[in-house]
Amino acid sequence: MPKVSMKGKEMPSSPIRKLVPYADAAKKKGLKVFHLNIGQPDMETPSQFWDKLKHLDMKVLEYCPSNGFASYREKFAGYYNSIGINVNASHFMITEGASEALSFGMYSCLDDGDEIIIPEPMYANYIGFAMAGDIKVKPISTSIETGFALPPIEDFEKVITAKTKAILICNPNNPTGYLYSKEELLTLRDICLKHDLFLFVDEVYREFLYGDEPFFSALNLEGMEQHIVVFDSISKRFSACGARIGALVTRNTQVLDAALKFGQARLSPPSLGQIAGEGLFDLGKDYYNGIVAEYRNRRDVMVSLLNKIPGVYCPNPGGAFYAVASLPVKDSDAFCQWMLEGFEHNGTTVMMAPASGFYSSEGAGKNQVRIAYVLNTTDLTDAIKCLEAGLKKYAEINEGVLAG
Amino acid sequence: MPKVSMKGKEMPSSPIRKLVPYADAAKKKGLKVFHLNIGQPDMETPSQFWDKLKHLDMKVLEYCPSNGFASYREKFAGYYNSIGINVNASHFMITEGASEALSFGMYSCLDDGDEIIIPEPMYANYIGFAMAGDIKVKPISTSIETGFALPPIEDFEKVITAKTKAILICNPNNPTGYLYSKEELLTLRDICLKHDLFLFVDEVYREFLYGDEPFFSALNLEGMEQHIVVFDSISKRFSACGARIGALVTRNTQVLDAALKFGQARLSPPSLGQIAGEGLFDLGKDYYNGIVAEYRNRRDVMVSLLNKIPGVYCPNPGGAFYAVASLPVKDSDAFCQWMLEGFEHNGTTVMMAPASGFYSSEGAGKNQVRIAYVLNTTDLTDAIKCLEAGLKKYAEINEGVLAG
Repeated sequence: MPKVSMKGKEMPSSPIRKLVPYADAAKKKGLKVFHLNIGQPDMETPSQFWDKLKHLDMKVLEYCPSNGFASYREKFAGYYNSIGINVNASHFMITEGASEALSFGMYSCLDDGDEIIIPEPMYANYIGFAMAGDIKVKPISTSIETGFALPPIEDFEKVITAKTKAILICNPNNPTGYLYSKEELLTLRDICLKHDLFLFVDEVYREFLYGDEPFFSALNLEGMEQHIVVFDSISKRFSACGARIGALVTRNTQVLDAALKFGQARLSPPSLGQIAGEGLFDLGKDYYNGIVAEYRNRRDVMVSLLNKIPGVYCPNPGGAFYAVASLPVKDSDAFCQWMLEGFEHNGTTVMMAPASGFYSSEGAGKNQVRIAYVLNTTDLTDAIKCLEAGLKKYAEINEGVLAG
Repeated sequence: MPKVSMKGKEMPSSPIRKLVPYADAAKKKGLKVFHLNIGQPDMETPSQFWDKLKHLDMKVLEYCPSNGFASYREKFAGYYNSIGINVNASHFMITEGASEALSFGMYSCLDDGDEIIIPEPMYANYIGFAMAGDIKVKPISTSIETGFALPPIEDFEKVITAKTKAILICNPNNPTGYLYSKEELLTLRDICLKHDLFLFVDEVYREFLYGDEPFFSALNLEGMEQHIVVFDSISKRFSACGARIGALVTRNTQVLDAALKFGQARLSPPSLGQIAGEGLFDLGKDYYNGIVAEYRNRRDVMVSLLNKIPGVYCPNPGGAFYAVASLPVKDSDAFCQWMLEGFEHNGTTVMMAPASGFYSSEGAGKNQVRIAYVLNTTDLTDAIKCLEAGLKKYAEINEGVLAG
């Protein structure tokens, strides 16, 4: 019997999805599972999206151009212009979610064995995309005590080698919710210019900001026109995750040319999501303000409740809709599985993403979880109360085991 | 300025799409361009597909499971059962077109530096998917004189090394239209069993058959349950290319497990294409019979016209909707570009895919083109007449150049 590849064996299961079978089993038992594991917003996809589908008048659902419909790229660029980023439709390559944009960006800029520096905890799937392209992830640690701020420049210098080709950050950050400041981006600019590195920035959450600091896009870093590759998506902004429409945005034409060749190989991104999604870019400030107010409220509720639980610490995230919290457990993988398999509270339980999968360093983050606050405040409150009860019970059981 | 990767530089442009800028320029000049370059069927996407979209009653367009909606996988498996292939929903991983299924299949079974044997000419994008995964394509030649039949078993034995992990064929074939017989598949079985190789079979065109021989799916090869990985798609079967819905089908659970991890990294395939596409599997024999009769007629018209042109040879394809023809030119890349840039015939011209891009061997197939017969017979006839006029003019110009 032929064997699967080492890559296929070693590829990590997504920490966001690997517990799905346990959640399914819990649901089969009749439990209500609060999903804090996945960044699947509960917000309604705007009606403009559905209306477009209802009024489609097409005969053949054709391939679109490999870099996406021109009209869609123009709308996307128009939205960028409206928030003060000077790019045009030619700077966009439309992809199957930000996921594919990240893969194409990596393949286009890094060869087999090349290295990419990513602050950890990091979005778990970055590790998977890198592995598919035989690219080495070089993590640099950030700390829950500083709210996962950018580490000092010396930490970057320490891990840069001749093989280093890029630094990747997510801003605001998934999984930590940390919002990088303009000063931190200027620091990254200095490093990238000094060592001639690409700066990859995943900005899919750029509207989800809860403080007073305005968002500073990496595309507005001066002198970095050839170094910056930004990844974007309509999934979170418009609660349209299932559309699978993302984008790679850069002014570097060589990167665009290379990405287009990877794009041609897979022919085209999905047509329907682009056709339905074109109107979304016309949504005004009111749309974003409503969404942001709701998520800010959720964050406040969640962070406050979490920090009241004995032994739990959750820094206050500045953006996105995630937080990484430390729990009074030794192994959050085992704890998260137990919450689904061995626990219930008033007929409910909670699914979270163990943070170990968001660390590239072996053994790091073992007592942490990523929580996505994508539920209304009533459910969110119930979920955190359920977590609190679970932690209490888990401690009792483990004390019992130790005592026994 | 940071440099793109070697991979990004060396990645081939798709021969199907690289002439698009020349076609766009020809259209801007007011010419009608007959697209014989791309397998984009002109058939209408069945009304069932559009009806589903018109009557959608959803609030949030969510991610779907990483291996696709369970209901969709069940429908897909039901269609397989109806054509005599004994698989169930758990054997399917739904992907973003067959393209992604091919990528996942390769990553799951082949590591950096491993080798995959593919008869050439081959679907050009196989080369791109392999390159993205640092996998080496080992071509074995097939010949236009034999209609691109499978070469003798010795040819395979010659290129098999310790690094060889899989053989990949497309059946019926893109780009040649060749239909592999059951006997040829049994030969491949013997090779794969002897050398413990995966047999990858791209069967997206399995309904498009024009002879008397029934289709024999690789999934029905006995003793090969762990070796066979089949790639499928709704793009051609239902003229739904823009939906980007494909599948990887195998009974090998290790391959499914590995593919699922690559799938989890990109979260999910498109939701809309699955929701709209579910009803298509209920289309009966009449649907397929109508489509096949139309393509058979087109094939007959095209092959007959092509073989009447002096210096042109086109074998009669048994399936799919492509043919590879040899032309009386030295360099079909230059000729195809000239057809778009420097020629017109009654206000029209023809776009074809130069066959060189379908060969992995340097310099092979230089006088060949791939033609997709995806136009109605009137347009197809005009297109071939236009090609004939183009070849005549091109010969005159080149003789003039030689004479001058």
